[in-house]
Amino acid sequence: MKATILTIGTEILFGSITNTNSVYLSQQLQNLGVDVLRHITVGDNEGRLLKALEYAYEDSDLVLTTGGLGPTEDDLTKETITKYFGTTLKEDPEQLSILKGWYAKQNRVMARNNIKQAWLPEGSEVLPNPNGTAPGFYYTDGKRHIYVMPGPPRENIPMFRDYVAPKLAQSRDGYLYYKMIRTIGIGESDLEMALIDLIDGQTDPTIATYAKQFSCAFRVTSKRATLEESKAAVEEMMQKIRPIVGKYIYSEEDEELLQVDLRMLKERGEKLACAESMTGGQFAKSVTDIPGASAVFYGGKVTYCNPAKTAELCVKPDTLDKYGAVSAQTAEEMVRGLYLYTGCSCCISVTGLAGPDPDEGKPVGLFYVGLMYRGKVTVREFRSHQRTRTDIRNFACIQMARMIYKALNND
Amino acid sequence: MKATILTIGTEILFGSITNTNSVYLSQQLQNLGVDVLRHITVGDNEGRLLKALEYAYEDSDLVLTTGGLGPTEDDLTKETITKYFGTTLKEDPEQLSILKGWYAKQNRVMARNNIKQAWLPEGSEVLPNPNGTAPGFYYTDGKRHIYVMPGPPRENIPMFRDYVAPKLAQSRDGYLYYKMIRTIGIGESDLEMALIDLIDGQTDPTIATYAKQFSCAFRVTSKRATLEESKAAVEEMMQKIRPIVGKYIYSEEDEELLQVDLRMLKERGEKLACAESMTGGQFAKSVTDIPGASAVFYGGKVTYCNPAKTAELCVKPDTLDKYGAVSAQTAEEMVRGLYLYTGCSCCISVTGLAGPDPDEGKPVGLFYVGLMYRGKVTVREFRSHQRTRTDIRNFACIQMARMIYKALNND
Repeated sequence: MKATILTIGTEILFGSITNTNSVYLSQQLQNLGVDVLRHITVGDNEGRLLKALEYAYEDSDLVLTTGGLGPTEDDLTKETITKYFGTTLKEDPEQLSILKGWYAKQNRVMARNNIKQAWLPEGSEVLPNPNGTAPGFYYTDGKRHIYVMPGPPRENIPMFRDYVAPKLAQSRDGYLYYKMIRTIGIGESDLEMALIDLIDGQTDPTIATYAKQFSCAFRVTSKRATLEESKAAVEEMMQKIRPIVGKYIYSEEDEELLQVDLRMLKERGEKLACAESMTGGQFAKSVTDIPGASAVFYGGKVTYCNPAKTAELCVKPDTLDKYGAVSAQTAEEMVRGLYLYTGCSCCISVTGLAGPDPDEGKPVGLFYVGLMYRGKVTVREFRSHQRTRTDIRNFACIQMARMIYKALNND
Repeated sequence: MKATILTIGTEILFGSITNTNSVYLSQQLQNLGVDVLRHITVGDNEGRLLKALEYAYEDSDLVLTTGGLGPTEDDLTKETITKYFGTTLKEDPEQLSILKGWYAKQNRVMARNNIKQAWLPEGSEVLPNPNGTAPGFYYTDGKRHIYVMPGPPRENIPMFRDYVAPKLAQSRDGYLYYKMIRTIGIGESDLEMALIDLIDGQTDPTIATYAKQFSCAFRVTSKRATLEESKAAVEEMMQKIRPIVGKYIYSEEDEELLQVDLRMLKERGEKLACAESMTGGQFAKSVTDIPGASAVFYGGKVTYCNPAKTAELCVKPDTLDKYGAVSAQTAEEMVRGLYLYTGCSCCISVTGLAGPDPDEGKPVGLFYVGLMYRGKVTVREFRSHQRTRTDIRNFACIQMARMIYKALNND
């Protein structure tokens, strides 16, 4: 099946809300082996909605819509779809009684315009909405299929999960399986060049590369008659890929590098602590973004000024005077001080210049990372050519995760 | 002008990434007075991209695209648009030298397939990309206009801001001026009700309310023949608004609450320090996200485990045993310990449960903030009803900024 996801709502076109419905439905359809050909968003506008349906059915046999099912005048999704398919709207007595019950339960009076929500296209199948007043529906003329759902995610997610997905699963023509492989230390174009022979010859499984910020990923996807066959095809392809780019692969489970670091530290029963200057808490935040970090993470110190580096990490005032806060010497004393205070087997420090202005006669983007793992200290200098403060700090956090990863792998 | 936003990238159709480009561009086009008729997303597929262009230009005179400008084989946006307009691609010597310089500066060898990024459609105008290797371009056949930008937001946002917006502004039929006013302590519907008489009577200036995460903003916009007239009209409207909702306004310059806090502390020559458990460095990160934070921010402690709270902040083991880490008592001892170590006149602490699992018999979302400002300690309990770890931590950071704001304003 080939699908178009059609989200309806003027507020999306204003940029007032982010279209998470398309993200959710895309993920779900992919899992069900349905190809998503495109997303379209239009406002609550009959003419443009009709045009969108025509455009979608040129190559899709399935359309999923969200939005425009409410009781107000500008909600015209149902009316327009009914018109498109040349059928008519009819009051559904069961839906009307559910609707009345809903208002009664909430001790609210049902405004007259709400009755509209109990009207459904003749020949359609209702998709119940236990979380709101507007039911959805499924309609087909035998060739074109449409699932019409309300806009709020708290209503359309359960509706999709409980009513739409089971129907789609029945009619699918294959099982899709994919693996997202994460790499570090190789750029997207080099990655593609390395895999070009496999990519060029691809029909199934397919390989697609993705540039993430400061790292790359690729996805291996197969769609076969059974899930087992798809899985086997992906694994067979992986066996060809690993000898070529295996040394850059750090996760075959779509994990962030820091997640892998934490998992490895946890397996070894070790603890992590950090001392940050330039990143100002961002590294600690990234660590604690990961649920379960508390099993590994002792804590951190954000020593944003020189007195804090001395008071909290025993960095010698002499060192700060002689080499500056942004120096290999300071990074080393920071990490040694951190170990002294925390005793964690994995201690990491960072000091640098995120800008916007140069300082100590040093350029924006220069930073030093100190790592002390099982007693061994390594200090590395980095120069980020990113332009913004945010990107420089993101880059530093990635390099910190990478230094830990290397140490954990004796690299 | 009537616009279609066309985002290109198979990863969007897989649901692997959220389409924030459409949100950003919609907001910006709205500011410029351009009507957005629809959003379309297609994969890196020539046939579907061509169809999308045909569909878009049926009623739009302006198309903005993002994505598909990279060096790899599946990036075919430029090729397809060139084909659609019946022009040809030509190597741009200036872009090629910029591209070579980019790789040289990063000490990287340019893979052969990268040269493709220096090819531009004949007759197009380059849109420089200082943040990446792929330049964008503007092309028109006199009737149909297209702006083609790279996919990553860190590349297309500066490109839109510095090159696209000024060009679009030239072709507009008046000067738009707006103020984004930030409020705290009032919900969006209450804000709208308070301003309803002004909103209902609006033609120019217009007032629109926006729900931000945990706060509200509203925008006053005017479009007159000259910029001065637009500014005067907005100020006149502000004079009607201030008596009504002035007490909720914390910034008329679209600042974050924390920015206002830092500005006030700086004016007073005071210092800020933080001690974080639940937010794990996020508050310190938010502070240091603001350029110039070093003038005010001493630093922070991320005490993610109980031993760290005792070792770093002198929280009594007895207190942790008796009341738990998530308690008003612990928050208070954290902030007192922080003051002891740092001597900053503004010290703030937070301890709580971001989930996913309850702990100490306490519910997810419960947290305590301790504030010590000029010797006075205040501890407050909060319960976040947000569903995710991320949202709970965001909510906590906003409440911390708000407690500082209140203390600074003797509220």
